[in-house]
Amino acid sequence: MAYSISNSSFLLSRPSPCHKTSLTATSHSFLSLHSASTARQFSSLSAARIRRGGVCAAVAIEKEVPENERPETFLRSADPAAVSTSVRARFEKMIRDVQDEICAALEAADGTGKFKEDVWSRPGGGGGISRVLQDGTVFEKAGVNVSVVYGTMPPEAYRAAKGNAGADNGGAKAGPVPFFAAGISSVLHPKNPFAPTLHFNYRYFETDAPKDTPGAPRQWWFGGGTDLTPSYIIEEDVKHFHSIQKKACDKFDPSFYPRFKKWCDDYFYIKHRGERRGLGGIFFDDMNDYDQEMLLGFATECAKSVVPAYIPIIEKRKDTPFTEEHKAWQQLRRGRYVEFNLVYDRGTTFGLKTGGRIESILVSLPLTARWQYDHQPEVGSEEWKLLDACINPKEWL
Amino acid sequence: MAYSISNSSFLLSRPSPCHKTSLTATSHSFLSLHSASTARQFSSLSAARIRRGGVCAAVAIEKEVPENERPETFLRSADPAAVSTSVRARFEKMIRDVQDEICAALEAADGTGKFKEDVWSRPGGGGGISRVLQDGTVFEKAGVNVSVVYGTMPPEAYRAAKGNAGADNGGAKAGPVPFFAAGISSVLHPKNPFAPTLHFNYRYFETDAPKDTPGAPRQWWFGGGTDLTPSYIIEEDVKHFHSIQKKACDKFDPSFYPRFKKWCDDYFYIKHRGERRGLGGIFFDDMNDYDQEMLLGFATECAKSVVPAYIPIIEKRKDTPFTEEHKAWQQLRRGRYVEFNLVYDRGTTFGLKTGGRIESILVSLPLTARWQYDHQPEVGSEEWKLLDACINPKEWL
Repeated sequence: MAYSISNSSFLLSRPSPCHKTSLTATSHSFLSLHSASTARQFSSLSAARIRRGGVCAAVAIEKEVPENERPETFLRSADPAAVSTSVRARFEKMIRDVQDEICAALEAADGTGKFKEDVWSRPGGGGGISRVLQDGTVFEKAGVNVSVVYGTMPPEAYRAAKGNAGADNGGAKAGPVPFFAAGISSVLHPKNPFAPTLHFNYRYFETDAPKDTPGAPRQWWFGGGTDLTPSYIIEEDVKHFHSIQKKACDKFDPSFYPRFKKWCDDYFYIKHRGERRGLGGIFFDDMNDYDQEMLLGFATECAKSVVPAYIPIIEKRKDTPFTEEHKAWQQLRRGRYVEFNLVYDRGTTFGLKTGGRIESILVSLPLTARWQYDHQPEVGSEEWKLLDACINPKEWL
Repeated sequence: MAYSISNSSFLLSRPSPCHKTSLTATSHSFLSLHSASTARQFSSLSAARIRRGGVCAAVAIEKEVPENERPETFLRSADPAAVSTSVRARFEKMIRDVQDEICAALEAADGTGKFKEDVWSRPGGGGGISRVLQDGTVFEKAGVNVSVVYGTMPPEAYRAAKGNAGADNGGAKAGPVPFFAAGISSVLHPKNPFAPTLHFNYRYFETDAPKDTPGAPRQWWFGGGTDLTPSYIIEEDVKHFHSIQKKACDKFDPSFYPRFKKWCDDYFYIKHRGERRGLGGIFFDDMNDYDQEMLLGFATECAKSVVPAYIPIIEKRKDTPFTEEHKAWQQLRRGRYVEFNLVYDRGTTFGLKTGGRIESILVSLPLTARWQYDHQPEVGSEEWKLLDACINPKEWL
């Protein structure tokens, strides 16, 4: 499907790379189309992208403004969906509750580190809360961000998303389609090489009906996932983590865990290395082929499962003794994390291109990382076992 | 113009981003077109790309094979240009001489570190020599690589390069155009925060005449540059560095230094930060509008200027006392280096996409780097001065 809140930047991501549509920030406040020929280019390509589940076009998002206080809601007061029963409002409440809950659990686990908070809004509505704990006792860097975005997309994107992109004839006259997106995203990098990095992200996306087509439906999608990136395999930890993901999935559909586990292995693939970033978890995107309430419940269940999936592992591993060699290997794997995020992660790469809040986008990067020329772990070593599991994904349950 | 050897990967780079043509490695030995519609997409876009000085198409390069010994030459024995008087042969000799000379000077400056060498070839001709000095006394990581590539490009690329891409009608029937490329590329990261990082790269590119168009000319281009990335501004060092670049340029054309200095500032731009990677130097690409012998002489002069431009600075700064804070700032700037190389550098991004030798491509990355959330140097501090000069490029001479 079409746009969704990104994995690590809380900006809008594109499910398939859409390099043809270049966005540039004009007058430091709005994003606009770089090239007049974009619409034409887009329409000639939409068929291929729909087949791949993606659409591609230009998105307009306003520049953020720092705020001193957290507002009750980032929804526009004039938004008809601002009522507390709407999916928009309930999703925003859920991600903000989860942000509070997870930050409290992380501070408790860290013991000394405290989250620094940055709140921002956008003049036309929407905004976000970035929270970062840096150089704590347990965590090197932990970021937990929520954001709400109101933007517009070209009509081609809307038509492609609802599946009749072939009918492109009237395209030139159609107006832009407003959209809404909200998400929570987090990357947690502990110091101890035996304590794994965690990433999770849950997002909801909705379009308004296009103004030129009365009665055309709103579109909506859910996306997200939680995945674990250890430097060393401690099997009981990986099994614990995956079992919590499976439990959350199984409450909703028995097909979810196997499907989203594979999706996760496929998504976090560092193609130039032939390796996954880590040992996976679950990942899904563009989900709208189930009941909307069911999917809201599923995203909520997944987000609420982060604390029980991760905190027990941290408690067990945060004080494990380690050597300089263990630390160096962790740093090398952090280098791979940087490679994935800067080269492949849709949210990050899209965020960088469209002028999002850079510090929020790049909070996913570790505090420190390392690149050693031609490092090859000894066959059979613990480092080799991790690498092997990143090259050949395993079933953990 | 069209293809050129990359800045930091010794692979082929594209002067403008050509995201529409995706390349994938098939059967682990050749690169081939991902999509049958690429040619059509290319022809519809070539006009725009020519205007921007770039063309875009698929390139076929064979997979490399490790070698035990350095061959006398990487030129194909059947290559009519293998005679020692050809530009191909003289350029290869020059870059290999410069590699030897620079590696000797770097080992002498380091005192203890030694270069590790990897030699490889490709079955159909061409190959390379990667040399890396890691964790020496003075250098954290220093890579100096040469490579020679024989490949083929679609005829559209050739036609676009010679400026009549409008005449695309016979395109479907034209055969692929063989090309040759050779280059030297190097990134040198010292340990001391007052000793700057250096990057340089010089490359030569040539096409064969297309087989279907008897009498059509070969195309050729030169490209390259040398640039300095300090963590702290020591003005006498930056002036010394730029004055050597200017001297090399002025021997050939008084317009070169101002033009290539600006080109360098424009190229090494980290768009999402609004900063340059460092304090520049010179950069040029697609150069074929001067006498070929003159440009060979110019590239040679520039490459030979690396030692006098850089080694005196290293000798002066390698033992400067520094604090943990100085080191942390250097590490943050190294993070920016990683961001530029993974997100923007044409050679790196193209190399990663096309399955080049990953360890050679990513040798440009520093041994260690750091990302700190929302780090803002104090106004007026030495760190702030460096950042200011990266945001607002200065004239150093």
